[in-house]
Order: sequence, then structure tokens, then C-alpha cells
Amino acid sequence: MRSADPHHVSPRYAQLTQRIAGEGASAWNIHFRAKARQARGEDVIILSVGDPDFDTPPSIVDAAVDSLRRGVTHYADVQGKQALRERIAAYHRAHGGQPETSADHVAVLAGAQCGLYATAQCLLDPGDEVIIPEPAYVTYEAVVQSTGAVPVWVSLPPDEGFQPRPADIEAAITPRTKAILINSPHNPTGQCLTPAMWETIATLCRKHDLWLIVDAVYADLIFDGEHLSPDSLPGMAERTVVISSLSKSHAMTGWRLGWVVGPRPLMAHLVNLALCMLYGCQPFIQDAAIAAFDAPPAALDMMRETYRQRRDAVVDTLRDSETVATLPPAAGMFMMIDIRATGLSTHAFADRLLDEHGVSVLAGEAFGASAAGFVRLSLTVDADRLREACRRIERCAQECQGESRLAARPLDGMTS
Amino acid sequence: MRSADPHHVSPRYAQLTQRIAGEGASAWNIHFRAKARQARGEDVIILSVGDPDFDTPPSIVDAAVDSLRRGVTHYADVQGKQALRERIAAYHRAHGGQPETSADHVAVLAGAQCGLYATAQCLLDPGDEVIIPEPAYVTYEAVVQSTGAVPVWVSLPPDEGFQPRPADIEAAITPRTKAILINSPHNPTGQCLTPAMWETIATLCRKHDLWLIVDAVYADLIFDGEHLSPDSLPGMAERTVVISSLSKSHAMTGWRLGWVVGPRPLMAHLVNLALCMLYGCQPFIQDAAIAAFDAPPAALDMMRETYRQRRDAVVDTLRDSETVATLPPAAGMFMMIDIRATGLSTHAFADRLLDEHGVSVLAGEAFGASAAGFVRLSLTVDADRLREACRRIERCAQECQGESRLAARPLDGMTS
Ligand SMILES: Cc1ncc(COP(=O)(O)O)c(C=O)c1O
Ligand SMILES: Cc1ncc(COP(=O)(O)O)c(C=O)c1O
Repeated sequence: MRSADPHHVSPRYAQLTQRIAGEGASAWNIHFRAKARQARGEDVIILSVGDPDFDTPPSIVDAAVDSLRRGVTHYADVQGKQALRERIAAYHRAHGGQPETSADHVAVLAGAQCGLYATAQCLLDPGDEVIIPEPAYVTYEAVVQSTGAVPVWVSLPPDEGFQPRPADIEAAITPRTKAILINSPHNPTGQCLTPAMWETIATLCRKHDLWLIVDAVYADLIFDGEHLSPDSLPGMAERTVVISSLSKSHAMTGWRLGWVVGPRPLMAHLVNLALCMLYGCQPFIQDAAIAAFDAPPAALDMMRETYRQRRDAVVDTLRDSETVATLPPAAGMFMMIDIRATGLSTHAFADRLLDEHGVSVLAGEAFGASAAGFVRLSLTVDADRLREACRRIERCAQECQGESRLAARPLDGMTS
Repeated sequence: MRSADPHHVSPRYAQLTQRIAGEGASAWNIHFRAKARQARGEDVIILSVGDPDFDTPPSIVDAAVDSLRRGVTHYADVQGKQALRERIAAYHRAHGGQPETSADHVAVLAGAQCGLYATAQCLLDPGDEVIIPEPAYVTYEAVVQSTGAVPVWVSLPPDEGFQPRPADIEAAITPRTKAILINSPHNPTGQCLTPAMWETIATLCRKHDLWLIVDAVYADLIFDGEHLSPDSLPGMAERTVVISSLSKSHAMTGWRLGWVVGPRPLMAHLVNLALCMLYGCQPFIQDAAIAAFDAPPAALDMMRETYRQRRDAVVDTLRDSETVATLPPAAGMFMMIDIRATGLSTHAFADRLLDEHGVSVLAGEAFGASAAGFVRLSLTVDADRLREACRRIERCAQECQGESRLAARPLDGMTS
């Protein structure tokens, strides 16, 4: 039978492989290109990835080392160590989460990415729809599509500061809608949902019996204001799943330590999934994570303050630009630069910026159609390098703008 | 619409949650019970898990510590570090694998468990059938069913030393068969496939255009003989996927470091999946893994030799038993004990052995119907403790046998 199929390669891969191979997977190409050039010794400023330039604070590293030396290197509790889950529950409560949250509402997984993936597996059936504001973090499409569910993109209008429009979200709800996925603080824009917006979205979830999936990985990097966690709103604890990690707040991206907070039945499902997908997280990394929660806040405050200063450095450097504009983020480690005045597609702009000016940024389109005309830069090099990067961006944008004008204007010799 | 469904809990979990909640997930209950009793200070001999009692060799721990201290704590290459993938390729070639295997045929994942899961996602569609000899490692059912595919169990007959019967495998093949999943050396029986059996299975795979998925986590713990990797057989490289890890051979269960070796297109799919499921393995753990491959073989030889001696201790202690029989394993860290003479179900026997004699083993049925009448013990305590465990097993078995005989014989007072 199989050989009747003209596209048959022998033997066949699963259809899932097509669903996870979208734009998201290729968004990183420019980043990998930049890293390759940097590795060859070229002067490249890499602003294309959300990886802190800080070292993991020493007390956390020490805890991992102690644990390794004590031989804490065997299979661990698949849901996560009790002591760690207790700290995550306390952290969640302290970040505006449901006050009843306990260790039983927590599962430890290999990073927020794994938390998002595992949550999607446990909530979404093929054909289900998940409403996601776009631009959105590049992996969401593959996460949702890996389950056979369908992402339904709702535009975050750039000229309204990339804030969601409740009417647009409601209009996107159909009988197949199963969940709304919200990332706040937001990658790539650095914007936060207002309390009123959380209320509105919660109301929609209750009214239409939807899950609310929240990606809160930047919750500890808010410059002004407080994080709100919608599971503390009335009737929301049973339908809200909050996913986060130590990656960004504690400069621990490579440790792959994240978690899911949600209703107890979900935890049972996540444990079953983790048994066959992962078989637990490294116990010595869990010990390091416990130390992270117990760490003095000074190191974290320093990192947050540094990101804020870098944001300000970018805003200052580009303040008087006539070709590019900044959208200052309220949180996180990213920033959107508006390059619409250049007349170029953002992919073309990002390619040229890397090839001719040695700065790697991600094209807004990689995050969704609504971010066309923007590039995202990471605040992950020091302020001086960022200022230099801004000058290169400005120079590249001016060149592009000049060329577009030239191209748009009929050439003298041709019209005469 | 949803509320029309009487089983509707608000809101709904994915159907996948049912498919991953089988026997496999509950097989561990007895182990968790035993650990709880041991934690309370009771004299419990835990033989219910495949977790080496050895420490990870120091040179491997040192490599992780060095790497942590050098700040190798950022996001890593999602396919795995090149240097590590080169060593895995060399290891694979040295273990009888396809001589052309290179780093491009390798993906690093979070343990063999994650490798099995990720491979299943990339190969299996809903409704596909996967032939698996049983008894089988308890997570296979959930791994296969997580994709919507169906495990088709083929009995390993206990009275033929749990060796597969080729005719049974061929008889199980249907137009829906997509893969055969073989674990050799085998958990729970410790048996290895013979070269002739590999040839036969390879022939079936070629004839019926099937994937051959090989779980080789015990390949480095063979007491006698050599490991064969079927991707080196003619026409098999393009249809064979070999999954392994450092967990067992290097006493690194808690490090979650494993890999998949297979055709290049599979690697591209695995990377796409890893981007949305995991976002790479810890770089400092990858450095430790590199050190593991470079470690002097003495530590590994010592561990293998110790398992062999423990196997012999069990065989010796139970040699003259009239109630239980051993099936000596050729490899690995497990051993099957035949308790059919007790007349008890193996679940009942395992419960009683734990409750009354303080020894935890897994019931054969947890691994599949063909292992009914057997319990699996792990060679993960020293030889003296193992001998003590064997005496308790023997005592428990004799009690049970006595009671069964009594129950079977009509009581004098009743018949008269
Ligand atoms: C919005 C968002 N979610 C999740 C992640 C993944 O985080 P983790 O390292 O915890 O997997 C990232 C990383 O960039 C992110 O930006
Ligand atoms: C047959 C088999 N495969 C896979 C695994 C999982 O190994 P890892 O620790 O590499 O995930 C085990 C662990 O017991 C096993 O016995």
C-alpha cells in the first residue's frame, strides 16, 4: 500500500514532523549565522537570542557542585523534589498567584520550554484551537502544532503599543477554542498585560470554558509595576496554568530548569507524561534551583537594574533618529525597533544588518505578521556595545531608506 | 456544546492523558512504597529500580564541576555539542554500529527515555502499529501511545529463555505496522538477541518496509559476548534508530544524558522537536558526558564485573531452592526469578514480599503478560544484601507455596 504513495520515502516519518518544522524553527538561522561569524573572529554584535550575558550567581553554582560531590546523581522524583516544589509554590504565591498554591500544584520540568510543551500535550487535542496574540515567542507555533491543535493568531497592533484588543480575542473564539495562551511580560515586545486586561481575558475564559495558559518567564524582570498571575482571579485557579523558569531571572538558561503551576489533576497527567518523556530532572540541578530561590536578592536586582540601564541606553542613543524608533519595554531583556521608515522587509533588513554591519537581530515577522517592520534586539551585551549596535542599526537604516527613496523616484535619464 | 458531554470536567484535558496513564505509570507504586518505608528507617531491601548503587566516576563529576565553574551555563547547541556527538558516533561504531556513523547522525537528548519519546514522535502516526516483544520496559506503552500509535505485543516465551520467536513477530505484521521496537540487552530479563535473530528481524524490516527502533541502554553491561547494532546490517542504516545513554554504564541515571543515532533526516526532525520540547541539554552535563567517553575503562569494567558477581551470588543462593528458580542474565542489572511454584499472582507475591519480608521487587506482569509468574530484581545492592534478599524471597515463596497447597487440599474436618 505504502508504495502506491508517490511521495513515499522509505520508511516514512510521522506527520508531526511537518507540523513542527514551521517558521519558528528557521527563525534561529540568522542567529546561528551570526554565531558562526563570531566564532571565526569577526566583529559581530549578537542581539538575536534571549540568553543573559551574566554568569549564574556563584551561590547557585556552589549548590550544584556540593550536590554533585555528595553523589546526588541518581534518578530523582519525577514531579520534582518536594523542597523545590515548595519554594516554587511560595514564589508563585509571592508573584500574585493563587494563595492556596502548594507543592502539589507544581511540576518541575526541563525549562519553561518543556513546561509549555508538556502542558500543551496534556490540554490540547487535534483540531482544538488555541488563541495566541502575535507577535509571539517563536516556539509557540510548534508547541501547539505538535499536538495537532491549531494556533489562532490575534494581532497585537503595533500602533497601540502591542497591547491585545479584547474584542479581537473574543471574535476569535469558536466552539473549537480550547485555550488562550498569554505571555506577559512579553517576548518580543517587553510589554505587560494591565490588571484590567487580565480581568477581561479571565472573564472570556470563564464564559467560554477555556484554559488560560500563561508564560511568565520574564515575571522577575519587570522594571516598573508588579506581576499579576491570573490564577488568583475568581474561578480561574481551576483553568489557569502558569509556566515559568529560572532561565532569565537567574541567568540559568543552560540549566534547563522550569516548572508548571496548575490544578492537581494536571500535575498527575504531567507526571505520567514526564515518566515516558523525561524521567525527571537532574537532582543536583534541583538542588541548585533550591539555592536560587534561597539566594540573596541582590544578584537578581543587579541583573534587572542592568537590563533597565541597557534599555535606557538604547532609547537614548536612538532618541533623535529620523529613520528608526524604539518601543521601550516595561520588562524583560528584549526591545522592538521600528524600521518601517526604511521601506525594507524586516528579513531583508536583518540580513543586511548582519552581513554589512555585523549586528544580528531577529526580524519581527519571525514572531508574527503584526511585527513586520520591527526588529527585536536583546539587551544582552553591555551598554557601550549596545550603543555601538544602535549606531550601526541607524547607519544601516539610513542607507536602506536612501536607497528606497532612490528606487521609488524615477531616474532622470529614464523619464526624459 | 461541551456541556452536552456528561463526562465533561471543566475545562477538559487532552485524550493523550488517558493514553499515557496505563499500567506502566502505576508499575512504580511498589517502588515508591518501598522507598517511603526505607525513609522511615525500616529494614527494606530495594530491588525495584534500575538505578546503580555506584557513584558517578569522579573524573566525570570533575568535568561537570570545571565546566560549571567556567560558566558553561548558557543555552547549548540543540542537537548537542559537536565534540560530544563525535564521541557518541565513535562509541556507536565501536559497538558494532554502521561504520559510516558520524556526528551528523547523532542527536543528544535528556536520557534514553527522552530519546525513545522523541523518536516515537518523529516516526509514529496515530493508528500506526509498533511490534514490541513483551515483557518490555514499562515506559514503552506510554511512549508509543503518546503518539496515538498502538503497541502490538508479541510474547517472549519464558520457557524458551524469553527469546523472541521470528514466526510470532512476522505473524504480528499488518499493513499498519510501522516499526519494531527491540530492547537488547533486555530489561527485565537480561537476555541478548543473537546475531542470527538480528538478521531475521532486519530481514522482516526490509521486507515490510519497517523502522527498527533499538533500545541499547545496557549495551555496555554485557557479561559475555559482544553487542551487535543492526544498523550495520545491509540496507538497515536508513531504517534503524538506536537509542542509548550513559545512565546505566556510567552510573549516571540522574544526569539525564542520552542520544539517538539514526538517518540524517531524523536528526533534522529531532532538532525541530527538541527546539519546542527541550531547547537543548545542559552544556556542563554535555562536558561531563565528553569526559565519560574519555574516562579510563577501569571504572566501567569494575561496575560490570560487580554486576556479574552479584548475578552469580543470586544464582548461587537460590540454586538449591525448590520453590523459586533463576534465569541468569547475560547482561545488565536485572534478573528474573520464577515464582510460579508458589501458586500466587506475582503482584500478590511482590506485595507480600515487601509487606512481610521487606524486599521490593517488581511483578513480572508490570512488564507484560508473558512474565506472569516471575518477579524482577535489580542487582543494585551489594552481594551480601542480595544473598539476604534471596533468603527472604525463598522464605516468602515457601510460605506462599505451603498456603496454596493447604488451600488446594480439602480440609479433613470438612470432608468427613
Ligand atoms: C517567552 C518565552 N518563553 C519560554 C522561553 C524558554 O525559556 P526556558 O529557557 O525556561 O525554556 C523563552 C526563552 O527565550 C521565552 O522567551
Ligand atoms: C530498557 C530501558 N530503556 C530506557 C531506560 C531509561 O534510561 P535513561 O535513564 O537513559 O532515560 C531504562 C531505565 O531503566 C531502561 O531500562
